[in-house]
Amino acid sequence: MDNKGYIILGIDPGSIKTGYGLINAVGRSFFHIDNGLIMPPKGLDFKDRIGFIFRGVCDVMDEFKPNAVALEDVFIAKNAQSALKLGHVRGAVMSAAAIHGLPLFEYTPTRVKQSVTGNGRAEKFQIQEMIKILLRLKEAPYEDAADALAIAITHAFTV
Amino acid sequence: MDNKGYIILGIDPGSIKTGYGLINAVGRSFFHIDNGLIMPPKGLDFKDRIGFIFRGVCDVMDEFKPNAVALEDVFIAKNAQSALKLGHVRGAVMSAAAIHGLPLFEYTPTRVKQSVTGNGRAEKFQIQEMIKILLRLKEAPYEDAADALAIAITHAFTV
Repeated sequence: MDNKGYIILGIDPGSIKTGYGLINAVGRSFFHIDNGLIMPPKGLDFKDRIGFIFRGVCDVMDEFKPNAVALEDVFIAKNAQSALKLGHVRGAVMSAAAIHGLPLFEYTPTRVKQSVTGNGRAEKFQIQEMIKILLRLKEAPYEDAADALAIAITHAFTV
Repeated sequence: MDNKGYIILGIDPGSIKTGYGLINAVGRSFFHIDNGLIMPPKGLDFKDRIGFIFRGVCDVMDEFKPNAVALEDVFIAKNAQSALKLGHVRGAVMSAAAIHGLPLFEYTPTRVKQSVTGNGRAEKFQIQEMIKILLRLKEAPYEDAADALAIAITHAFTV
């Protein structure tokens, strides 16, 4: 991190919606660049959803050229089936980081909530509101995109 | 599939060892091209293991230019943790197929065993022996590579 900034791509992985958020960390400040959702069209096979998410993450990396990727670490999955699905998405994100030669950092949901709101058990809407304030946005981003920005901010606090 | 052949890359995914096997299906015959194991070095972080496997699969695709990928479908995972790990590897393989524009087909272990040995509950060593015979090899391949060849052959039977 220096005066030219350090662009962090935060990712909140999910097979229905994968949130992404980009911030530029300059010294001890950070600035919002972009955020959004990667949502495979309904009706795609699961394997094609994973390919869609992989390409979507690659597109974001190609467009914004981040210096690092911050990914939400795994919570205790409810069951083997949801763990398996989440694993596929995380594997696609890790593959995208690998092909772009980007370092990847992982943070647990509790750590992310703690970093952004001061409360490791914060609700989704509290994250959205804090992201709006911290990044001086006019509106709160969508839940998963707000989570992705929160993950990026968590990484900014550690570098 | 025509007289020029149809190259199938079979993959048996695993975070410790990922087996791969390539065959060329020409008419109703098939020929062995190559097989092997992608094994991330010990001591790598899990996320770096996934990146290593992704790159390894991409390298095999770049070298042998398969027409299709056949992947072992998910067995009922023992628990959420093993499902999560397997999901990551499968996500990396799906990403590699996506970036190479390759169609991907999935077959359950039972179907693969049935196709190759006639017994859906065949043991690993029986698969190895049948692969050796079917592909006219001097020695049986390693277990996971033999499984990958069996997955490729299963796909050859369906096209």
